Amino acid sequence: MEQRVVGVLGAGQLGRMFVEAAARLNVQVKLLDVGDTAPAKQINYLPGPDGKSQHIDGSFADPEKIRQLASQVDVLTIEIEHVDATQLQKVLDDKLVDAVHPLPPTIALIQDKYLQKVHLAGKGLPLAEYVAAGPEDMSKATDSEQARSAQITAVADIGEKFGFPLMLKSRTQAYDGKGNYVVKSADQASAAVAALGDGKRGLYAEKWAPFEREVAVMVVRSATGEVRAYPAVETVHKNSICHTVFAPLRTADPGVEARARKIAEEAVATFGGAGVFGVEMFLMPDGELLINEIAPRPHNSGHYTIEAADTSQYENHVRAILGLPLGSTALKVPSAAMINILGLADSDKDDEAVAKTLVPAVVSLDVPGTTCHLYGKAGCRKGRKMGHITIVGQSDAQVRSRLHIVEEALDKATELAEQGGKLPSELTLPGVVAQNASASASASKAASAPSPKSAADFSHPQPLVGIIMGSDSDLPVMMAAAEILKKFDVPFELSIVSAHRTPDRMRTYARSAPARGLRAIIAGAGGAAHLPGMVAAQTALPVIGVPVKGSTLDGVDSLHSIVQMPRGIPVATVAINNSTNAALLAIRILAAADPSYLDKMQKYMEEMENEVNGKIERLANEGWEYTLKK
Amino acid sequence: MEQRVVGVLGAGQLGRMFVEAAARLNVQVKLLDVGDTAPAKQINYLPGPDGKSQHIDGSFADPEKIRQLASQVDVLTIEIEHVDATQLQKVLDDKLVDAVHPLPPTIALIQDKYLQKVHLAGKGLPLAEYVAAGPEDMSKATDSEQARSAQITAVADIGEKFGFPLMLKSRTQAYDGKGNYVVKSADQASAAVAALGDGKRGLYAEKWAPFEREVAVMVVRSATGEVRAYPAVETVHKNSICHTVFAPLRTADPGVEARARKIAEEAVATFGGAGVFGVEMFLMPDGELLINEIAPRPHNSGHYTIEAADTSQYENHVRAILGLPLGSTALKVPSAAMINILGLADSDKDDEAVAKTLVPAVVSLDVPGTTCHLYGKAGCRKGRKMGHITIVGQSDAQVRSRLHIVEEALDKATELAEQGGKLPSELTLPGVVAQNASASASASKAASAPSPKSAADFSHPQPLVGIIMGSDSDLPVMMAAAEILKKFDVPFELSIVSAHRTPDRMRTYARSAPARGLRAIIAGAGGAAHLPGMVAAQTALPVIGVPVKGSTLDGVDSLHSIVQMPRGIPVATVAINNSTNAALLAIRILAAADPSYLDKMQKYMEEMENEVNGKIERLANEGWEYTLKK
Repeated sequence: MEQRVVGVLGAGQLGRMFVEAAARLNVQVKLLDVGDTAPAKQINYLPGPDGKSQHIDGSFADPEKIRQLASQVDVLTIEIEHVDATQLQKVLDDKLVDAVHPLPPTIALIQDKYLQKVHLAGKGLPLAEYVAAGPEDMSKATDSEQARSAQITAVADIGEKFGFPLMLKSRTQAYDGKGNYVVKSADQASAAVAALGDGKRGLYAEKWAPFEREVAVMVVRSATGEVRAYPAVETVHKNSICHTVFAPLRTADPGVEARARKIAEEAVATFGGAGVFGVEMFLMPDGELLINEIAPRPHNSGHYTIEAADTSQYENHVRAILGLPLGSTALKVPSAAMINILGLADSDKDDEAVAKTLVPAVVSLDVPGTTCHLYGKAGCRKGRKMGHITIVGQSDAQVRSRLHIVEEALDKATELAEQGGKLPSELTLPGVVAQNASASASASKAASAPSPKSAADFSHPQPLVGIIMGSDSDLPVMMAAAEILKKFDVPFELSIVSAHRTPDRMRTYARSAPARGLRAIIAGAGGAAHLPGMVAAQTALPVIGVPVKGSTLDGVDSLHSIVQMPRGIPVATVAINNSTNAALLAIRILAAADPSYLDKMQKYMEEMENEVNGKIERLANEGWEYTLKK
Repeated sequence: MEQRVVGVLGAGQLGRMFVEAAARLNVQVKLLDVGDTAPAKQINYLPGPDGKSQHIDGSFADPEKIRQLASQVDVLTIEIEHVDATQLQKVLDDKLVDAVHPLPPTIALIQDKYLQKVHLAGKGLPLAEYVAAGPEDMSKATDSEQARSAQITAVADIGEKFGFPLMLKSRTQAYDGKGNYVVKSADQASAAVAALGDGKRGLYAEKWAPFEREVAVMVVRSATGEVRAYPAVETVHKNSICHTVFAPLRTADPGVEARARKIAEEAVATFGGAGVFGVEMFLMPDGELLINEIAPRPHNSGHYTIEAADTSQYENHVRAILGLPLGSTALKVPSAAMINILGLADSDKDDEAVAKTLVPAVVSLDVPGTTCHLYGKAGCRKGRKMGHITIVGQSDAQVRSRLHIVEEALDKATELAEQGGKLPSELTLPGVVAQNASASASASKAASAPSPKSAADFSHPQPLVGIIMGSDSDLPVMMAAAEILKKFDVPFELSIVSAHRTPDRMRTYARSAPARGLRAIIAGAGGAAHLPGMVAAQTALPVIGVPVKGSTLDGVDSLHSIVQMPRGIPVATVAINNSTNAALLAIRILAAADPSYLDKMQKYMEEMENEVNGKIERLANEGWEYTLKK
C-alpha cells in the first residue's frame, strides 16, 4: 500500500503496539517523545541520510516539536490525551498536516473530565450525578487562593446534596486514579482540595457510585462516523490501576453486554474525528450502566484484542485514522483475559526490581494460551506499566485457571518485592526456567491445578454445563451426570430449578445461561416432565432432557413428554434415567468445537471398547462362570 | 527479562516476523543483511552511540560479516538455510557465540537435499525413492564436463529404473521450485542437466510421486530435544511456490493428521540444535505420507500461526534458541488459511507493479477475520514474496468464503498485470476504498457470497452438519432439516447411509466425520432404527436421531430404538418425524461455541413469538373464524 506517514505524539507502550500494527500495513510512523529508545521507537527504524532514525527527540507537550513533527507527516495522532490540543488545532489550521485524529476539540473536551461529562449528559448518555466543585470556568478564577476556598465550600455543599462519601476529581491531568479523592465527610473538604491542586486546578464532584462491577468497551470510529464496538469486557482495578480484563463480559442479566456496547457506540458517535476510543462504565446493582470516563485512544482494557479479536484495537486505530475500512471487532476465541505487569519496586532502590516485576512473565511462558508483551522499558518504578500478558482459551474456566498460575506468581513476586527478599534463581532468567526441572515441574503442576472453587465441587464459578432438576428427589438419577462431567474435567454447576414450583427462577436461569457462558443445559424431569422443554423454550442453547422414571408408567410418560416437543423448540432427549448419556452428550457438544474434548471422548470410547475386550477374554479363558466370581 | 542478544543471518520477511516476536519478549536482535532498510531492520532500531542502528550491512554469505555479527551477540540463528555452514561452525569453535541454532552440521546436512534424504532414510523415515544422479561426492569430480556426462548417463539409467517422468533436482541452492526439472523421457536428460548447473552442481533424482495433496507440519525443537508439532496443514503450490495454506488439514482418513505430526516430530528429533523446522510431505492416494523436504527455520506454511495458534512459529523459534520453555502449538481458532502476496510484475517494467500486487491486500481489509502482513519491500519483482494474508474463522466454510473474496481480487489483479491494464482507482489506495462506495459495496457483497458449491446445494464442500438417512424413502421427512439448515446458512451435506445395507459406508462416514470438519450428525431412521445409535458408537461427535414414523406402531418403535441407548453412547433424540427440530438442535450445538449462530437462533425464537402474537391479535380482532379464512 502506498507509503503514508503517520505522526504520533508519545512513544510509550501504546505507541509501540500502534507501530507494530502500522508496520504490517506498510504504514510509516514518525514518533515524538524524549530519547532514542522510547518503547515505540525501538521497533521502528526510520533511517535518514545520516543513518540515524528520523524520529523526533522531545516532549510531546512541546509546541515547537509538535510543529516539527506535523510538518513531516500526513496524519497526526496521539497515544496519550494529555497533549497540547490548541497546538494540534494550530498545525491543522496551518495545513501542516492533512488530519489530526481524534480532532483537537475532541481531545480538549475529553481532557477536561468535567466538560466531558457536560457533553455526554447533553447527549442524553447515562452518567453518575456530577457537579462542578468551585469555579466552573477556572480561567475566570482570579487567584488560586480564591478558587481554593470556593472549592472547599463547594465540596461541603455538594456533600449535603449527594451525601458522603463523594468522589472529588481533578478535571484535568488525571489518570490511573491520580487526581481522585474520596471525601468521606465535610471535614475532609480542605484536605481533599489541598491534595487536588489546592485551587490551581478545576475540580468536580461525582455522587458515589456503589457499582457492582466495572465494564469497558473499545469503540472504533471511522472518519465518516461509522462506529464499531468490540465486545464489552469486565475490568478489575487495584489501587485505581487496571489489573485484569476479562472478555467477553459475563453477567446473569442477559442484556447487559449489548446495552454496554450500545451506550459506548452512542457516546463515541458524539465525538469528532476518527480512531479508537475506550469507554469505561460502572455496572450498577440494578443493571444500570453509567459512563465513568472516555479515553480518545487505544486503551489498556483493549490490549486483549491483539490475540483475541479479528482485528486488534491498534490496527483499527491505524485503519480509522487513514480512512481505511474498519476491521471486524468480533472475538475470534471463546474467552480471553489480560493481566498487567506493573513495576513492583523502583530500580534505584532494588537491583532486582525489574527481575521481580517480570516473574509473572517468566512463569507465563509455561502456560498454554498466554502471550507476553514486554514494553522494552529499561528502568522500573513501582506501579509503572512494564508489560502485559494476554491469555486465551476455549472457555472462561480454562482462561481463569491459566490466569490463576500467573496471579500466583505475581503474588509471590509482590511478597518478595515488599519484603526485600532475594529472587530465587529459577525465576530470574527465562533461560533457566526450561533447564530447571523443579521450576518447570511446579509450573506444569500448577497448569493442571483447578481454579479456585466454591465449597461444593459441583458449583464451578465459570460453568460450561448446567445440570438442573425439578426436585432433589431426582438427584439419585442425576448425580451420574455430575460424575461424568467431573471425570472429563468439565466445569459445571448443579441446582434445583422447578418448572411448576419456581417458574420465575426457571425463566431467569434459561435466559441468563448464554450470557453466563454456559454452552449446554442438562435438565432431568419425571412425570409431566416439563422442565427440559420449558427451559429450551427460553434459551438458544442446546438443552438435553433426561426422562426420570416415576412410580408408575415406567418413565414412558416422562420420555414422551420430553421428546415430543413441537416444531421450533428441540430438546435432545436421552434414555430413561440415563443421565450418564446426558453428560456424555453435553461433552460431545463441547467437543464439536473444542478439539481437546473430542480427544477425551475418543479416548473414553476406546476405554469402553477395551473394557469389553477384557470381558471377552475372560469369557474365553474362564468360561461364563467368571461372572459369578465378581 | 534479561536482555540477551540474538544475531540473525538474513533480514527478510522471516527475519521481520522473528524480530516482531523477539521484541515482545525484550529480546534484542542484531541483523546481518545488505542495506539499512531490509524488511526486518525496519522494525528494529538498535541505536549505537552515533545514533545509527547497529545492524550489520553486508551479505549473510560473507565470512567476515558473519564473524563480526557473531562477536556481538550471544546466540546466532538463520532465516535462510543457504548460508556458510562452515563459517558458522568456526565462530562456534572460536567461542565467538554461546550457540548457533540450528547446529551448523544440521544446516549443512539440510542444505544438500540429497544428504538430507540419505539422513532421513537412515532414520527409517518415509521418502519417495531417490538416488544420486552422477557423482555422489562432487568434490571428487575432477571437472564439470566429466560430471555433466556422468549425470546425463545417470538420468537415462535412473529413468529405466524409476520410469518417466522423474524429478531431477539440484542438491543445493534449490527453493521455490528453482533447481527442479521434470524429466519426461530419456531424450531430455541432457537438457535437464544443462538447466541444473551443467555438471557444476550435484544432482539427484526422485521417483515421481503422484501425490493427492501436499501437507506441511511445523515443529519446534528445544535445545534439550523436546519436539512439539503444530497441527498438520494442507499446502497448495502454484508454479512450485506456496500459494495457500489451510489449517487444520481435513481428510476423509481420520488418522492422517496425527500420522503427519508424528512423522514430522520424528524427523525433526533426528537433527541437532534448537529452533523451528518446517516439514513438507506428500500425501499419497493410499494414505501414505512421504517426506518431501525439510526447512531448518520458520516456514511459509507456518505464517498462519501468528493469528491462529496459541504461540506463533516465530515466538517459538525465539523461545527455542534461547532455551525458554516452548509455547503451546495448539490452534486457538477453529479454522485458518493463509494466502501469499506474490509480486505480479516487475517495478522497472510496470509503474503499478506494487499497487497491482497489493490489490488482494486492499480488498482483504473489508473481509472479517483477515490480517494483512506486508513486508515493507519497496520494489517488486514478479513472484517476489511481498506479504501474506491470514484468514481465521469459526469454520472451514467461513474461512473458504472469506478467502474466495481475496482470491477473486488476486485473479483480477493478475489479469490486469498480465494484460498491462491500468488499475482502477478504487483498488490502488486503501484510503480510497473506504470512501468509494462502489468498491466497498462490491467487497461487502462479495463477503456474503457463498463459497463455490457443487451442483447440489445440499452438498457443501466444507460441511459442519451431515444429514443422513437409511433410505431415500426417509427423504420426505428429512428434507425439513435441510430447509432449516439452509435458512440458517449452515454448510451441510445430505446423503444416504444405511446401517444394515451399507455398514462399511456407515463406519467410514462416522469415523471420518471429525477429521472432515463436521460438528454434528443428524440421522433419520424408522422401524429398527439403528442408524443413529450405530453412528454414535463410531464417532465422538454429537449425533441427533430423528425417529421416522413407519406404517405400523406410529413411530414409537423408532423412537424407543433411537432413544434407549446403553450407558456410554448417547443419541440426542427428537420427536417422531420432527427433523425440523433435529436441525434446530444442530444449530444450537453450533451456537454453543459460535456467537453468530446464537444470535441467529435467538432471532428465530423471537420470530416464532411474533408469529404467535400475530395470531393472538387476529383471534382477538376477527374471532376464531379467522382460521377458516386461510
